[in-house]
Amino acid sequence: MKYCSHCAHPVVLRIPRGDGLPRYVCDHCQTIHYQNPKIVAGCIPEWEDRILLCRRAIEPRYGLWTVPAGFMENGETVAGAAARETLEETCAEVDSCRLYALFNLPHISQVYLLFRGRLSAPRFAPGAESLEVELFEERAIPWDRLAFPVIRETLRRYFADRRTGTFPVHTGDLLPEGVVADPW
Amino acid sequence: MKYCSHCAHPVVLRIPRGDGLPRYVCDHCQTIHYQNPKIVAGCIPEWEDRILLCRRAIEPRYGLWTVPAGFMENGETVAGAAARETLEETCAEVDSCRLYALFNLPHISQVYLLFRGRLSAPRFAPGAESLEVELFEERAIPWDRLAFPVIRETLRRYFADRRTGTFPVHTGDLLPEGVVADPW
Repeated sequence: MKYCSHCAHPVVLRIPRGDGLPRYVCDHCQTIHYQNPKIVAGCIPEWEDRILLCRRAIEPRYGLWTVPAGFMENGETVAGAAARETLEETCAEVDSCRLYALFNLPHISQVYLLFRGRLSAPRFAPGAESLEVELFEERAIPWDRLAFPVIRETLRRYFADRRTGTFPVHTGDLLPEGVVADPW
Repeated sequence: MKYCSHCAHPVVLRIPRGDGLPRYVCDHCQTIHYQNPKIVAGCIPEWEDRILLCRRAIEPRYGLWTVPAGFMENGETVAGAAARETLEETCAEVDSCRLYALFNLPHISQVYLLFRGRLSAPRFAPGAESLEVELFEERAIPWDRLAFPVIRETLRRYFADRRTGTFPVHTGDLLPEGVVADPW
């Protein structure tokens, strides 16, 4: 950020009075431009004993597999965003969406909120950002071709939970190099 | 947003190619300025059968009671943000922080993520943004002087859970006028 989006004057990075962190501040119109973490909303779409994965048609991680997920938009609910991403990337509809995991990626200021979604029907097709969309049994999951460590961690926990039949809400921090922590 | 924060040229609101929503776009440097929901991280600080509330010394809702909560910052984890807000607003430390509720406020593009925190000790004092900080038993909660509907809903569920001794993670949508929905 170089210029004030309200008045086009140059901004400076400094700690505003009464604040504890440096912010981009406009000394012309006095606007403080806060920057905050983004939510990535995602869904594990379920059909009987299989889940739906999509192969990315976009960078980063072109060609690798993931669950439908993307940045939440203003005006949405998190579950609504997860269902929308599912529809956009896999052309599939879910008729339920239950919170499954909260993972922090503090080094890139992202919070993943992942849901379990029940497909309304086994109908799906690649959306504009997917090369392929497919239902996978656990034994067929392409573990060495998953796009992101946070997705690998989520699916690892998901299939472990499936064996017990209980799905508690998971929380954790995914640090660089895929290290998983939960200091709380 | 009127001007591009990268190059100071005027922005226009339009749907970028390949996108589905209007964005502020700079036709000079081609930057697309996305705007996304913000996370409010909060904590219910617990000490034996009481919880810590603070009385707001700032607008909005000056003089009303709430749990410590505020906007999550870049580089934080959500639980880390909840613990920081607790320290800033009540000068109290929590030594655990477990996810308790996710509430969407889509009409103002906010997502509340609320935790149960255990106080390390019954030591607290008003921070810069609080007039008073106090431990409350359930029967002493100032229900008619709480600052926000989302806090009232959270505490209502919290004390109901306390009677059963189980604390599932709650989710829901808080719509204008305090209407609570969970379409999923």
